[in-house]
Amino acid sequence: MRVYLAGPEVFLPDSEDIGARKIEICRRHGLTGVYPGDTTLDLSGLAPRAAGQRIYGCNRDLMRGCDAVIANMTPFRGPSMDVGTAFELGYLAALGRPVLGYSNSARSFPQRILAHFGLDPVPGGGDPPARDPLGLAIENFDMVDNLMLDGAILDAGFEVVTRQVDDPAQIYRDLTGFEACARRLATPRT
Amino acid sequence: MRVYLAGPEVFLPDSEDIGARKIEICRRHGLTGVYPGDTTLDLSGLAPRAAGQRIYGCNRDLMRGCDAVIANMTPFRGPSMDVGTAFELGYLAALGRPVLGYSNSARSFPQRILAHFGLDPVPGGGDPPARDPLGLAIENFDMVDNLMLDGAILDAGFEVVTRQVDDPAQIYRDLTGFEACARRLATPRT
Repeated sequence: MRVYLAGPEVFLPDSEDIGARKIEICRRHGLTGVYPGDTTLDLSGLAPRAAGQRIYGCNRDLMRGCDAVIANMTPFRGPSMDVGTAFELGYLAALGRPVLGYSNSARSFPQRILAHFGLDPVPGGGDPPARDPLGLAIENFDMVDNLMLDGAILDAGFEVVTRQVDDPAQIYRDLTGFEACARRLATPRT
Repeated sequence: MRVYLAGPEVFLPDSEDIGARKIEICRRHGLTGVYPGDTTLDLSGLAPRAAGQRIYGCNRDLMRGCDAVIANMTPFRGPSMDVGTAFELGYLAALGRPVLGYSNSARSFPQRILAHFGLDPVPGGGDPPARDPLGLAIENFDMVDNLMLDGAILDAGFEVVTRQVDDPAQIYRDLTGFEACARRLATPRT
């Protein structure tokens, strides 16, 4: 089973190392990891937008050749996950492939939204406000992120794996949640 | 042609009005708009997560019944678009349907990332730094958002429509860019 390894760690300087660690974890669980950064694309002479489009085409083809996706849903530049990874979750979900995800934040989605606006967290057990300061609803479905993401993963028969990683250097590098997803994906369904 | 109307305006209190305006614009261009908020779901008695999953299932079925998507890519709680909308763009792209998008911010993606971290914008014409303060790459492909989003839209033969909307009350309500997408989608390809 070929597994597309989606996540914002592709933006880190040690992206290749992280990809290699993910591929090795997959191998230990009998899976073949496919990391978007692992191809050598010739982008020489291309204008920026053409280069970006070529990378898109490469990732699109990699996704179509995969049987599942494990997405790093750790919050990225705001309360929600990386939008490129969200796109990839949607892409694989539409193809009917198993979609799994993990987040290295265990804070609730409403609490992360409040923090984004510099607001105090709601004391334990209390309900968050229905709307943010801009008047937009604060989703409160006991889900890790926007319901389209969690919904797709639940729909596929999985649950988002969460754990709290506090060390800033490890937020996008800790692979404990990733390994839990790989183990779950490799476990025969009953 | 049935067009899925994706965007974070579903989180506004006047979501239904905005949906009705989008559907009317579609109608004027010979398109049938399908707004995710326009179904009446019975969520009574469901736990929050089950309710969220049912809404997901409803939106998934609406997407599968559509021939195209026009996505509101306006930045949402951070420098990038709404992750639910990004998921939906990926979903429709995987089905091979035309994907279009508009953003009510005309600021460049690197400038929005710098602003997210409270950093000064780069003076006109200058290159942004290669990495953000957390060490993550700042994408600089002359694209509106993460290359997976813009890439899918370029791949479908379209371009993201951008305009600068400064009135905070109109950021998610101004439909000028939306109408440009509807017009473009309704124009026969040569």
